[in-house]
Amino acid sequence: MPDVYLNAIASVQGSIRQRNDASTLSMPGSQCERLVNKIGISERPVVGPSQYTSDLALDSIHKLLIENPWLTTEDIGALIVCTQTPDHLIPGVSSLLHGRLRLPTDCFVLDINQGCSGFVLGTQMITALQKVQAKGKSTILVNADTYTRLLQPDDLTTRVLFGDGATATVFSSHVPRGLRIIYSHSYADGSGYDAFVAHGSALRPNGEQAAGIQMDGPAILNFALRVVPDAIQRALVDTSLQIEEIKTVAFHQANHFVTSQLSRKLKLTPAQAPENCAQMGNLVSASIPTLLADQMPEFKPGDKVMTVGFGVGLSWGVSIFEYALDES
Amino acid sequence: MPDVYLNAIASVQGSIRQRNDASTLSMPGSQCERLVNKIGISERPVVGPSQYTSDLALDSIHKLLIENPWLTTEDIGALIVCTQTPDHLIPGVSSLLHGRLRLPTDCFVLDINQGCSGFVLGTQMITALQKVQAKGKSTILVNADTYTRLLQPDDLTTRVLFGDGATATVFSSHVPRGLRIIYSHSYADGSGYDAFVAHGSALRPNGEQAAGIQMDGPAILNFALRVVPDAIQRALVDTSLQIEEIKTVAFHQANHFVTSQLSRKLKLTPAQAPENCAQMGNLVSASIPTLLADQMPEFKPGDKVMTVGFGVGLSWGVSIFEYALDES
Repeated sequence: MPDVYLNAIASVQGSIRQRNDASTLSMPGSQCERLVNKIGISERPVVGPSQYTSDLALDSIHKLLIENPWLTTEDIGALIVCTQTPDHLIPGVSSLLHGRLRLPTDCFVLDINQGCSGFVLGTQMITALQKVQAKGKSTILVNADTYTRLLQPDDLTTRVLFGDGATATVFSSHVPRGLRIIYSHSYADGSGYDAFVAHGSALRPNGEQAAGIQMDGPAILNFALRVVPDAIQRALVDTSLQIEEIKTVAFHQANHFVTSQLSRKLKLTPAQAPENCAQMGNLVSASIPTLLADQMPEFKPGDKVMTVGFGVGLSWGVSIFEYALDES
Repeated sequence: MPDVYLNAIASVQGSIRQRNDASTLSMPGSQCERLVNKIGISERPVVGPSQYTSDLALDSIHKLLIENPWLTTEDIGALIVCTQTPDHLIPGVSSLLHGRLRLPTDCFVLDINQGCSGFVLGTQMITALQKVQAKGKSTILVNADTYTRLLQPDDLTTRVLFGDGATATVFSSHVPRGLRIIYSHSYADGSGYDAFVAHGSALRPNGEQAAGIQMDGPAILNFALRVVPDAIQRALVDTSLQIEEIKTVAFHQANHFVTSQLSRKLKLTPAQAPENCAQMGNLVSASIPTLLADQMPEFKPGDKVMTVGFGVGLSWGVSIFEYALDES
């Protein structure tokens, strides 16, 4: 079966910068400061009044096409959009993008619904599709969400965490450069479904509960600290790698408190675990690829890179890549 | 790469039978009769007031497990739920089911969003996942929708078409019996996005338009009659089969008018193209597997079976299977 490469990533964010300060949060300055110090998120991009998920998604693909002139729309054999905040339930955002971009009709087009581990699950799914049926075509994975539209207006402790953004990532087998996928594995524990639910967001009414996202922060934190190190350990065993051999671990940027705890547990150096949550907040499934896009220019042939997703569902997963230059 | 088999299907429907007659439709009896004669849908299952997509989905998996004692929850390595009418946007229905069924944490869990071609796209995706990473585990594909909850109250011409139902289908490589997948290919034309939209169903507000499903029936009909025969022709060429060699063509049961036109174009005998829309209506992505579940007992080793999905997106696709008995 052919190898699959993550060739390039383009990222865009909501057009408004929202600061986690007294003016935005309507709480005393000292309280803001304590909060910002703990979560490590100073500001976040949020969508403007007329920006929806499909707008961010479309912008991310346009940027990807501009930055990668080797990629043409005719090359695209599959378009997967990972979102939990689509414009409409019917049809998916991927259908809208397919039409706007005038992609070929011979194209596998699908929305997938996953949250903060959506980049790992998307990578895992696309690896399988590329290996079995790509035939010289590329696959685009879009990760796009506008969670801020689903926040309860008075829930400031959740509001300070989330940003809105999108990434477009191109995978292929026929262009052997970028991050070669050597491992992807994902996990689920639906018994934690209630730890993060957007009530009243789709068909089931929310009864007495307030509409909007309800998040049990401590439960999610405990879950992440419990399952993520084990999943990483298993990934290292399965690939016969040591953690010291991983150049970069791109954690889902839930917030600095979580990522720093994970780094400590895994004895990672600060250089191994870069962060962007201070300026981006939690961009849901676009979080990892947004961070990875910034790191890409730093990678050298042979570098090993790990991505680690965890969150809503509950769901988590690990991918490992090896950077390669096109020698052809 | 290992072969992948569709081993078994279980189907359930909404608990209320709604007849397309004067009492339900509040239109004169003669008008009802003309409508029923054209669309060939006499009655449809619809959900009761407290039944949501996850309830139908859960029932379908319970039925699958009961009818197939060889399948245990520990065997399930992936759970894919195809729905456009989830309980919540966050998390997906698959997460809820994963928890309720106490599936293993080592499980690939994902919702996918597709409509009437969702069974073909699901089959195509699962084939790739099974071939690349199954390792002796089974995958469950659930197709579940409750479109009747999104219909505009006064839109009777759309209401008479749709039913609510779910199917659970088990695929595996280590159990070599049932329908061996020999071909799957899907297509998209997002320029037809507006032909079928559920306005106001998710994040984008619907402005002046009425909330609910808006369907351009003639556009969808013309699209299906234009693209489906070509996709079938290509599938036959790619598999070196003649249409006469296909024992059963399971069309998406949009309505009798569409399926009879397609049968005529393709010169299918009535025995080759069974229907269930008279009693089921259009069950969206559960339509094909509901029909297939009824046909399964009729298949003999070597029989070729084709499934044909088409609809919202726009999206369409064709799968071909060969029936096999377990000789072990």
